[in-house]
Amino acid sequence: MTGISNTPVPPYFSVAFTSTLVAEAKGYDLEAEKMVRLASQQEGFLGIESVRDASGFGITISYWTSLKAIGIWKQQADHLLAQQRGKSDWYSEYKVRICKVEREYSDQ
Amino acid sequence: MTGISNTPVPPYFSVAFTSTLVAEAKGYDLEAEKMVRLASQQEGFLGIESVRDASGFGITISYWTSLKAIGIWKQQADHLLAQQRGKSDWYSEYKVRICKVEREYSDQ
Repeated sequence: MTGISNTPVPPYFSVAFTSTLVAEAKGYDLEAEKMVRLASQQEGFLGIESVRDASGFGITISYWTSLKAIGIWKQQADHLLAQQRGKSDWYSEYKVRICKVEREYSDQ
Repeated sequence: MTGISNTPVPPYFSVAFTSTLVAEAKGYDLEAEKMVRLASQQEGFLGIESVRDASGFGITISYWTSLKAIGIWKQQADHLLAQQRGKSDWYSEYKVRICKVEREYSDQ
C-alpha cells in the first residue's frame, strides 16, 4: 500500500499499469518493491500509487514531470529486466497507458 | 474485481480516482457497484478498472470518449449523491485526476 501521491498542480504525466498476476508469481513482491524504490530515484518522478487485491488484479500509477522522464524510466536497465521477467513469469495480462493529467481535485 | 478494460486506440480520456476508505464504510460496496453499473450506461463510457486492498486503499479508473462525457457523468444526479455520501461517510481521503490517455500498449 502506497497511499495517495501528493502530486503538483497539473499538467504532469502518468503511467497507469493494470495487470493480473499468475497464481504463482514467485519473486514478484520483492521485485515490485525494488522497482518502486528505483523509480522514485529517477529524474522527473513525482509519486506512485499502487494497489493489488487478493485475486491478483492490480493497478499501479506512477507520476512524472514529462514524457521524456517516462521514456528514460522505461529504458532503465534494471527496469527493462523486470519488464521482461514480468512478461515471462508474473503477468497473465497487462496494459500500460501513458496519460497527461490535465486536472486534479481532492479532499485532503 | 473488474479486470482490464478493452479500451480503443488512444486518444481517449480517463478519471483516476484514488481513495482510502474509513474503517466502517457502511453501504459503500453496494453503492460502488451501483455507480459502476450507472457509469457503464452513460454516453461515452469506454470501461472501468477498479481495485481495493484489505487496508481500504483503492484505485478506480474509468475511461471515456471525451471530457464532455466525463463532465456529464460528474453531474449525473445519483452520482452527485454518491459523491456527497463518499465525502461525508466513506473516504478518509481521496484524489481525482482527469487525464488524456495518449498511448497504450498491452500484452494480451
